[in-house]
Amino acid sequence: MNKRKIISFIGKIILIEAVLMIPAFLIALGYGDGDAPAFIFTIIPAVIIGGLFSTVKQSDRRMSSRDGYFIVASAWIIISLVGAVPLYIAGGFRSYWSALFEIVSGFTTTGASVLAEPENLGHGIIFWRSFTHWIGGMGVLVFVLMVMPMDNDNSMHLVRAEVPGPTAGKLVPRMRTTSMILYGIYTVMTLVLLVLLIFGKMPVFDSFCIAFGTAGTGGFAVSSAGIAGYNSAYIEIVLGIFMLLFGINFNIYHLILLGKVKDALKSEEVKVYLGIVALATAVISINILNQAAGVGRAVRDAFFQVSSIITTSGFATVDYNFWPELSKHTLVLLMIIGACAGSTGGGFKVSRVIILVKSFFAEIRRIITPKAVITVRLDDMPVDKQTLNSTKVYAAAYMILICVFTWILSLDGLDLTTNLTAVLSCFNNIGPGLALVGPMNNFSVYSDWAQVLLSIVMLTGRLEIFPMFLLLARSTHDR
Amino acid sequence: MNKRKIISFIGKIILIEAVLMIPAFLIALGYGDGDAPAFIFTIIPAVIIGGLFSTVKQSDRRMSSRDGYFIVASAWIIISLVGAVPLYIAGGFRSYWSALFEIVSGFTTTGASVLAEPENLGHGIIFWRSFTHWIGGMGVLVFVLMVMPMDNDNSMHLVRAEVPGPTAGKLVPRMRTTSMILYGIYTVMTLVLLVLLIFGKMPVFDSFCIAFGTAGTGGFAVSSAGIAGYNSAYIEIVLGIFMLLFGINFNIYHLILLGKVKDALKSEEVKVYLGIVALATAVISINILNQAAGVGRAVRDAFFQVSSIITTSGFATVDYNFWPELSKHTLVLLMIIGACAGSTGGGFKVSRVIILVKSFFAEIRRIITPKAVITVRLDDMPVDKQTLNSTKVYAAAYMILICVFTWILSLDGLDLTTNLTAVLSCFNNIGPGLALVGPMNNFSVYSDWAQVLLSIVMLTGRLEIFPMFLLLARSTHDR
Repeated sequence: MNKRKIISFIGKIILIEAVLMIPAFLIALGYGDGDAPAFIFTIIPAVIIGGLFSTVKQSDRRMSSRDGYFIVASAWIIISLVGAVPLYIAGGFRSYWSALFEIVSGFTTTGASVLAEPENLGHGIIFWRSFTHWIGGMGVLVFVLMVMPMDNDNSMHLVRAEVPGPTAGKLVPRMRTTSMILYGIYTVMTLVLLVLLIFGKMPVFDSFCIAFGTAGTGGFAVSSAGIAGYNSAYIEIVLGIFMLLFGINFNIYHLILLGKVKDALKSEEVKVYLGIVALATAVISINILNQAAGVGRAVRDAFFQVSSIITTSGFATVDYNFWPELSKHTLVLLMIIGACAGSTGGGFKVSRVIILVKSFFAEIRRIITPKAVITVRLDDMPVDKQTLNSTKVYAAAYMILICVFTWILSLDGLDLTTNLTAVLSCFNNIGPGLALVGPMNNFSVYSDWAQVLLSIVMLTGRLEIFPMFLLLARSTHDR
Repeated sequence: MNKRKIISFIGKIILIEAVLMIPAFLIALGYGDGDAPAFIFTIIPAVIIGGLFSTVKQSDRRMSSRDGYFIVASAWIIISLVGAVPLYIAGGFRSYWSALFEIVSGFTTTGASVLAEPENLGHGIIFWRSFTHWIGGMGVLVFVLMVMPMDNDNSMHLVRAEVPGPTAGKLVPRMRTTSMILYGIYTVMTLVLLVLLIFGKMPVFDSFCIAFGTAGTGGFAVSSAGIAGYNSAYIEIVLGIFMLLFGINFNIYHLILLGKVKDALKSEEVKVYLGIVALATAVISINILNQAAGVGRAVRDAFFQVSSIITTSGFATVDYNFWPELSKHTLVLLMIIGACAGSTGGGFKVSRVIILVKSFFAEIRRIITPKAVITVRLDDMPVDKQTLNSTKVYAAAYMILICVFTWILSLDGLDLTTNLTAVLSCFNNIGPGLALVGPMNNFSVYSDWAQVLLSIVMLTGRLEIFPMFLLLARSTHDR
């Protein structure tokens, strides 16, 4: 393990986080809600400690793939531990651990909250909370790679560990350029959304926060009324469409920018993703027709909720706990599937589902014709053995971890539906679950230790299992 | 597809089933509850049709692995369709489909019932219902292989498709001898249990039925009072121990019979299985101590329920719906894990869990040391690639099917906990679930089409997915 490099890296991350807190600090100053000191008392120590760490002299040794995973996992933990400090100092959370849950939920773009009424917080804190969605959406490390020079092989290890999905595609040979392209597309799309929201008469402060939450597919609202509070079909449709867009693999946008529209349209994952959205919207629209005010309203509610859940954003305009069972079951299914790989969305990822279903049929074909060579193809290309194997191991680990986490959580005394959907919701970075953690409730029902456990669940899900476990693996290979 | 061979095979299976109904018919005659004609009207047509089918002249061509899967799937479906007839004729079921659910639940050793009070049925029908557990426990086809001569390669295909678990071990080179050994051990163990139950003052009729249900890890009770009705610590302890014994891989008993006790003790699966039982019993005993009448009673209740659930028997002596959440969550976890491969128990199987957990750690080791050759070992032997791959595909298919079946079932309008635990319970051949299908409720809450769907779920789970799907796969290889 390349310890010096890791310490210096973590130092830089703390420094960058301090800088990223400045906008929230300025807003806190501007609104004068009394939360400005909370930022001061975080930023100053962060600059000092981050500065000290980052001056540790680095060796020139190359990073291993393991170092990459290790750095990513520690970076996400450190950024959360530091990011929770202003929330705790400003007050409104029952403990530091509750504040930590809230900010992990922010960075991992889960959007699960321990607060019944976020409007009681100061504007600076609300802004910071939503801004963490935006930072976490595209990836903390991808951001770091953009602002910090690093050789190409090293950065590839980081990106592979952080970007969701079975494969981390390189857009261009140089990772720093890739990071810039990704963040460029991300920023422009967020700005377009911001303008559209302001144009739709959403208050400017809210527009910023909701745009961050939509871009990162996070789901923190600004007030307890949520998106329903704006009472605007225009806003719901704009958000519904943009959530979907942020749930698409960003490589697709890069291809479109390069004029390779044909290649972009070939993507099997995007086709299946949009197909699932269309089908789920149709099923739910018909299913809720009786209890909705007309066909238009049924389709609008169904589309918004489908888009919000499959992208794992977690915004709600209606309390879907009152929908018929078929609709509720459909939403739970979408929760598990999740968005596309390489997007800001969470979940199991559409491409993984495709690979697993194809592997299943490949196994059936193998039984029918034992001697044939059977390959699993995606986008007309054979999927390599390593990716196939990792995807299957990922599925198995996913299943085992959901079971184990739910089991441990039961020590807190809540019921199975609450615990299972809380774990699914946190692991897949969605936000709301069902029963006691339904869309109109919050996670304050859990005690402190359970909130810390759920924070670990969110991080494990966001980083797709392996980095968190490599952090625990004994360092027998210390060098 | 070797059509003539399949038709002739199915004919023989119908004939054998007719013979297997004779004991139930005699009991019906003896008790005179009026259910004897129901057997007559089934046995006579079955003999005629089975006889006609079985005279179809067979070609000498060898069976393919695919034919094996096909025969196993059709055999299980046919034997269920025929087995449900006496239940339907005798009355007490709201439709033929409900009777079919009940008998599929019998053969697959699920033990889920659509009846609130089975004691209203005639003795012949109750006996037949429990006897199907015993037939299904060791496998319908394994039984057929014992009474019917068949060449070795052909029979191997059948056994591989029917015996649960990632690998079908050959006990001895000749499959017919293997079947005889398996059924020999099975019969002797059942007889010992029968004697112990009668010795414990359980009524003789009940002793037969409960012994069948325990041996097959099925779980049909004789009356609505269930095992609690006998109110005997002795009976509960005997059943608890025997359920555990029937959940162990039968190869182990064969090894012990051959004097290879050392080899038998080496089995990793059995060690882990017993370890889980011990741990779960300890956790639940401590957890329910407050609400139980003393330590002894807590341990007794905990042990019985753990043994009943992990072996997927599904007998209940207490309504565990009233246990604390940790205990309930533990039971759900045991439901999913299930018993050992090659036993009469269902579920995901302990050996599969072991292989998946080891694959996960192998993947982590691969990330740490990318160049090392990493093998997954079981019982100190490397697991071959094909088994590894099949196990992972099985896990993925398991996860996908649980989701899809639960989703379709939601069309019937019941809640998520009921639907999810109903599907888990049927797929893993357990019996009771939670909420509306809890241990003191039954499956009559589902409408007819949903009961048929759940019957398909039980068969898919019992035959471990692939045979049922091969039945659906287009016969492009018809010869």
